[in-house]
Amino acid sequence: MALVVQKYGGSSVSDAHSIKRVAKRIAEARRAGNDVVVVVSAMGDTTDELLDLAAQITPLPPQRELDILLTAGERISMSLLAMAINNLGVKAKSFTGQQAGLITDAVHGRARIVDVVPSRIRETISKGQVAIVAGFQGVTTDTNDVTTLGRGGSDTTAVALAAGLQADVCEIYTDVDGVFTADPRIVPNARKIERVTYEEMLELAASGAKVLALRSVEYARRYGVPVHVRSSFSGATGTLVVGTYGDRIDPNAPSGEEEQMEAPIISGVAHDRSEAKITVVGVPDVPGMAARIFEVVAGAGANIDMIVQNVSAAATGLTDISFTLPQGDSPATMAALTAVQGEIGFASLQFDDQIGKLSLVGAGMKSHPGVSARLFGALRDAGINIEMISTSEIRISVVTRADSLDDAVRAVHTAFDLDSAEGEAVVYAGTGR
Amino acid sequence: MALVVQKYGGSSVSDAHSIKRVAKRIAEARRAGNDVVVVVSAMGDTTDELLDLAAQITPLPPQRELDILLTAGERISMSLLAMAINNLGVKAKSFTGQQAGLITDAVHGRARIVDVVPSRIRETISKGQVAIVAGFQGVTTDTNDVTTLGRGGSDTTAVALAAGLQADVCEIYTDVDGVFTADPRIVPNARKIERVTYEEMLELAASGAKVLALRSVEYARRYGVPVHVRSSFSGATGTLVVGTYGDRIDPNAPSGEEEQMEAPIISGVAHDRSEAKITVVGVPDVPGMAARIFEVVAGAGANIDMIVQNVSAAATGLTDISFTLPQGDSPATMAALTAVQGEIGFASLQFDDQIGKLSLVGAGMKSHPGVSARLFGALRDAGINIEMISTSEIRISVVTRADSLDDAVRAVHTAFDLDSAEGEAVVYAGTGR
Repeated sequence: MALVVQKYGGSSVSDAHSIKRVAKRIAEARRAGNDVVVVVSAMGDTTDELLDLAAQITPLPPQRELDILLTAGERISMSLLAMAINNLGVKAKSFTGQQAGLITDAVHGRARIVDVVPSRIRETISKGQVAIVAGFQGVTTDTNDVTTLGRGGSDTTAVALAAGLQADVCEIYTDVDGVFTADPRIVPNARKIERVTYEEMLELAASGAKVLALRSVEYARRYGVPVHVRSSFSGATGTLVVGTYGDRIDPNAPSGEEEQMEAPIISGVAHDRSEAKITVVGVPDVPGMAARIFEVVAGAGANIDMIVQNVSAAATGLTDISFTLPQGDSPATMAALTAVQGEIGFASLQFDDQIGKLSLVGAGMKSHPGVSARLFGALRDAGINIEMISTSEIRISVVTRADSLDDAVRAVHTAFDLDSAEGEAVVYAGTGR
Repeated sequence: MALVVQKYGGSSVSDAHSIKRVAKRIAEARRAGNDVVVVVSAMGDTTDELLDLAAQITPLPPQRELDILLTAGERISMSLLAMAINNLGVKAKSFTGQQAGLITDAVHGRARIVDVVPSRIRETISKGQVAIVAGFQGVTTDTNDVTTLGRGGSDTTAVALAAGLQADVCEIYTDVDGVFTADPRIVPNARKIERVTYEEMLELAASGAKVLALRSVEYARRYGVPVHVRSSFSGATGTLVVGTYGDRIDPNAPSGEEEQMEAPIISGVAHDRSEAKITVVGVPDVPGMAARIFEVVAGAGANIDMIVQNVSAAATGLTDISFTLPQGDSPATMAALTAVQGEIGFASLQFDDQIGKLSLVGAGMKSHPGVSARLFGALRDAGINIEMISTSEIRISVVTRADSLDDAVRAVHTAFDLDSAEGEAVVYAGTGR
């Protein structure tokens, strides 16, 4: 008997057939004695179809109206899902973001949740009924306007509701079996990760792993919500995202003290093809120049990722500064920098969108020397050139040519014994899983 | 400078192209200096598509969930329409039934409006912006649940908002030019009616004219809202539905006193093919029998229309009672009556769904003798048999065979000089229109 928040994405509810399948799973969870709250996304391609309709009307729709339009998608999926569950003899009611008490700020299109007041949801589950909640949306308190949370919004709705309801677990259902040590489309023998910490999952999500929205992981970490990423097509256990390796979400599992001590060194290899690199060439190496450049970049609205500054050449007193950023932010950033070329006095700008980023993530690398040496060695042996490097306590990222990225991921995955079969024994040695 | 409520039906906003066309008309009304509030239905076949989706999930969806599902349709059309208007440089905002303050009872699927609190709409038009409101929907105060108003709900939303805002006129835009003296598909030379009273429009709507929902006319009459039924495809004046023939909604029109005195005798001929007839044969002619029969019929949920009881045959002391009702209500009614055959002691039941109803409507017939004689004469001359007759102060209805109905409508239309050209001169003599 637990309070479970389940989230189903658009691919899990793409048509009447799959809605009925999901309804069956929900009804089973309820019949097993759990209190069940379900967050659902819009059916299949509904959101894209609505965006397409809006594009037929105007190239620049007001964001407030776009939010109202898009929330029609969850309204359809949530009511159909509630119908399907009722049809199985389990009482279910659907609720909009507003009715579920998801209060946001007024930044339409990417609103932030500022409060969760799920009194109607509590009332519904206290009657033994399943509560279905529209993902991705909320309401402002001041104006009672409908808002959307932006990309990954439904994951965030689910985690926020789980936090607000103090749920035992937030289950994120998706079309894959969990979080993998690498993208299985690139590394066919990638393994499902049994358990990762919030920090590792944050690094994986920020480094290109798409299975869980970065923002929902941040939210889960802040409120300590145990997240279980799993397939809506099978009953198998997926990936648990928890505070430490010892966290348990199943009271029957063994105590976690030893497990924590035996944490795997490496969780997985993420990759990202969505960034570009800008190099500012010939920057006068005087104090404040980097600050000025990144002021300009921030003013253009760009979300920069990695930064590398070369040692300046003694002869010229000039240096180069390279940074990576989302490809979509590049045009505005190039324009903004070009506008200040005279003021800053750099020589030229170089733009490169043929880059790929590989990130190796693992809480264990903090205490294990030699991880970076092994990574660079694997890439060298595979004949892959490294263009930029950045590190955090639990992550090493390298930038390569885009067309070398798949080879790089496979080489690193093998070098760290992440491949399945014997790989499992090494990485998870001692965890007994 | 007036406050205008405009309502656009689904066929006026069936795709992006027609939404843009409607937006242009709205922007023109605003630019002409009017305060404009727009009520919009779901796009084209959206409601039917959503009903079809629900039918794929379950044959008996909970009405609360069906209401949430269906309101997604207006959410899409209203936000797209607001975008299209903004794109023309006129500020517009869309509002759900809840945001617009349409408070209803909790009878899902056919909720009644209990209050209209349009404070956000007032605020919006006071800023010179166009307010777009989702038709067909409201919200309950107790539970904050979404309700729908049922068939003709968007017309009712528009009239209720017009009443709540004390609008100068409620314009109902449709795909025909107004209310006609008969269905132009049956009577090609039917004329557009320039002006009818609420009472006549009520009789026409109740008798099968589909251009305006009966319920919205009741609402308009109660609150004295002038309604203008017109085409969204042309700029032509349509049909004005007003309290008396002298009512003016245009301050430049001549005083109405004389017009009222010259009211046309007949407004039009409505027809209805959606009813069936049940005859209870051989009912003992003792007090209370009719009451008992119609108790049973009401218990089956049927909405009966005409009732005819024959004079009982002296020899047997038995009578027949016939009544008409919507075809959809027939199965339950036949079953309920069959169940009490022993108790009531009637001989048998006859069911007939091959009937048609013709209704002649006109406020002028109250004071003009000979209208019914002329009606019956026209049908006799056309060789059409009359099976049932019922009358009100401003209406005469007759039931004929379904396959004679079109001929009956044409014969009556001609007999009352309603055909266009010379017909117009006679019926509207003296009105100068």
